[in-house]
Amino acid sequence: MTSSRGASPLPPPEDVPVSFCHDQLTRLGPLWAAMLDHRFLRDTRDGTISDERFAVWMRQDYLFVEAAIPFIAALIPRAPRDHWAPLAGVITALEKELALFEERAEAVGVTLRGTPASFTNHAYIQFLLATAYRASYVEAYTVLYTAEKAYHDSWKVVQAGLATDSKWYPFVENWAGEAFAQYVAYLEAELDKLAEQAGATERERMAEYFELTTKYEIAFWEMAATGETWPGERP
Amino acid sequence: MTSSRGASPLPPPEDVPVSFCHDQLTRLGPLWAAMLDHRFLRDTRDGTISDERFAVWMRQDYLFVEAAIPFIAALIPRAPRDHWAPLAGVITALEKELALFEERAEAVGVTLRGTPASFTNHAYIQFLLATAYRASYVEAYTVLYTAEKAYHDSWKVVQAGLATDSKWYPFVENWAGEAFAQYVAYLEAELDKLAEQAGATERERMAEYFELTTKYEIAFWEMAATGETWPGERP
Amino acid sequence: MTSSRGASPLPPPEDVPVSFCHDQLTRLGPLWAAMLDHRFLRDTRDGTISDERFAVWMRQDYLFVEAAIPFIAALIPRAPRDHWAPLAGVITALEKELALFEERAEAVGVTLRGTPASFTNHAYIQFLLATAYRASYVEAYTVLYTAEKAYHDSWKVVQAGLATDSKWYPFVENWAGEAFAQYVAYLEAELDKLAEQAGATERERMAEYFELTTKYEIAFWEMAATGETWPGERP
Amino acid sequence: MTSSRGASPLPPPEDVPVSFCHDQLTRLGPLWAAMLDHRFLRDTRDGTISDERFAVWMRQDYLFVEAAIPFIAALIPRAPRDHWAPLAGVITALEKELALFEERAEAVGVTLRGTPASFTNHAYIQFLLATAYRASYVEAYTVLYTAEKAYHDSWKVVQAGLATDSKWYPFVENWAGEAFAQYVAYLEAELDKLAEQAGATERERMAEYFELTTKYEIAFWEMAATGETWPGERP
Repeated sequence: MTSSRGASPLPPPEDVPVSFCHDQLTRLGPLWAAMLDHRFLRDTRDGTISDERFAVWMRQDYLFVEAAIPFIAALIPRAPRDHWAPLAGVITALEKELALFEERAEAVGVTLRGTPASFTNHAYIQFLLATAYRASYVEAYTVLYTAEKAYHDSWKVVQAGLATDSKWYPFVENWAGEAFAQYVAYLEAELDKLAEQAGATERERMAEYFELTTKYEIAFWEMAATGETWPGERP
Repeated sequence: MTSSRGASPLPPPEDVPVSFCHDQLTRLGPLWAAMLDHRFLRDTRDGTISDERFAVWMRQDYLFVEAAIPFIAALIPRAPRDHWAPLAGVITALEKELALFEERAEAVGVTLRGTPASFTNHAYIQFLLATAYRASYVEAYTVLYTAEKAYHDSWKVVQAGLATDSKWYPFVENWAGEAFAQYVAYLEAELDKLAEQAGATERERMAEYFELTTKYEIAFWEMAATGETWPGERP
Repeated sequence: MTSSRGASPLPPPEDVPVSFCHDQLTRLGPLWAAMLDHRFLRDTRDGTISDERFAVWMRQDYLFVEAAIPFIAALIPRAPRDHWAPLAGVITALEKELALFEERAEAVGVTLRGTPASFTNHAYIQFLLATAYRASYVEAYTVLYTAEKAYHDSWKVVQAGLATDSKWYPFVENWAGEAFAQYVAYLEAELDKLAEQAGATERERMAEYFELTTKYEIAFWEMAATGETWPGERP
Repeated sequence: MTSSRGASPLPPPEDVPVSFCHDQLTRLGPLWAAMLDHRFLRDTRDGTISDERFAVWMRQDYLFVEAAIPFIAALIPRAPRDHWAPLAGVITALEKELALFEERAEAVGVTLRGTPASFTNHAYIQFLLATAYRASYVEAYTVLYTAEKAYHDSWKVVQAGLATDSKWYPFVENWAGEAFAQYVAYLEAELDKLAEQAGATERERMAEYFELTTKYEIAFWEMAATGETWPGERP
């Protein structure tokens, strides 16, 4: 779609549908690149991340994945009928992800439970839930796609360097793997369709949610990298 | 539990937990009995119901079961953590119920789709959804239990007389069967626990929802029996 | 607005905006006319309605107006910023309507409180609330406009015949009067704007909500005219 | 409030109601004290805060007050009937607060609009909205009380030192003044009543929300004091 074969001066033919997702990823290119270049991802890719630091991420992301279940459930009543079963399937997939965290935590001796949500994690979860309830369905679906796409691309970065026998590789397999890639491609196709049906004002709001979600994703990596405390709290 | 065997002057022992559900079913005994004695159930039990009349019920209940999916999904974000998986399981069970309707409709030549919700059906669905969003979780859970218990008891009435080779028997098997009985027993135990933790004001509201749901159930059988049109509409 | 004066072969000029509301009122003409021709309105207009019958309406509509407050409140968080103050103003107006009911009830010796919502009234209220939470904002706004427009037009019917010194005339003044007419005109202009910004799929759903609300309005007059009980209940 | 003057060995008399709010303020004493001792408040009290720093707070709090309107509106449909009018009154009060910001901004030459919500502000707003929709009413009401009580106490700190002719004094008058004090006292009395009616599990969750809200308040002052950017963003 973007391959304009060099010197071609021609505009895109009328029957090539415009992709909302592609447009946003282009518009937010530098922000997206900053996310993928985050030191947490680089250090994980290069195998230089400390176990303690990685455990911070594990504990927080475990809470985040759990909180994604009510987010998805809240979307179902406002979704078109043909999204109900796929969204119910996402809940099942999230339960499996939780099991993956539990299996890895057990294998490497990390205590997964008992840590409260960090400030950034709590905030991101509130953003998901508030959006599910208050925003329009297509806006909330934009958040879902952006978060999943961000995770897929982020773990692709890690995949590019992490040894396949690393104790963290199962996470790579989960989010950078083929099944997740297909899921993200499905979300993208659906979001593009919804965007086509939406009016111009709605598409502007969707673009804002796309950007906001990317910023929350960056905040999440930053939190994992710093082991942040709540503002005003003694570390 | 209430059978005090006549002259027994003893109060119930302190360690016998009070069952909210049992209390409500006792309080609403005449209403519940009126529901179970509805002519739609008797005629179905006795095999005297016309195919046309039963098809009205099939088409409307198909829409109702479908609408129960967003109702259940809307409950999940407000449910205690240990209710999430069971509620997600209800969604799966509802999808199977829809498949049962489709299989039966195909088998007996009923056109299932294309009929709009009747007035009473539409109203009952709105009641479910409004409750899921606005009422407290325990109030909404009361509606869920009451509706499922009502269906179990109603189809038990049909089971008492309908030939097992009847073309409608698969519906009996679904709602009067052992798996559904266990599901209703689970809901009852959970609702009793929630009621114990609730304050007095909350329990009063739960009792109102119990009664309202029973009335909507009666209205539903009445609608099925009359083939109701929307008020003011020419039949 | 689109009256093409007979033989005119000209299409409407490009700069005449299409009115969603006008289109719907045209499409649903017979249904709308049936609503305005309801015997409850005619009997009230002609002064032949019994006090007892009118009191049924008063008690039920009092409950309905009260329930409209949470409906409006639930709309605010999903409304565009410039709708917040007008919607908060609707809440104030509804409180004034409740005071009008109380003043009239006092004046004519009707006991307003203590009657539970009739089946149709309960159903209509659930429809409002479920829509506020689950439907998109423009769909819910469609319900608001349609219900208010229906009441304005309905009481215009009564205004055409009722003596201005009738004890029921204050209701006529409230809904058929100039202030309410301006409010309905404002809602109509806003809804038309929202419809213009909406995509085609969204406009179809808005049209469904328009029709559904009209049907609930008819059901409400029918309920008032018959003094309906809950289905299955002894009258 | 219940100060038992030192050596008194007596338990509180049975007819003195337990105050949930008082209990929480006692339990969270150090956290609450840390909030009131925040340098943003001290610097504002002492008149040493820079105009630029205060303008950061003004712009962000303006956005926060605006976002509190949908939060309050979302509470109304789930509130007891006698809370509807007071909550609608809060919306009116918030609109007046917005006007106060606009008047002060105009008076001192601060451009109020056009700044996006900071990370912490955005997060706090999401927390309010997610709570309004998902938590129980008493939990959400806990958040409302805690946030208002925090603001009252915080501006009391400022009031203790700021000159009454300071250009920022109108903010002191708004939140440290008598009208706001009475509003906070009303919220406290209502919350205490709701807590009394709640079960033990519910009260535990209310206590969590009390603590969380206090932490978000601290985060808000910290944000104002640092002029925070979004994580990962260049300042």
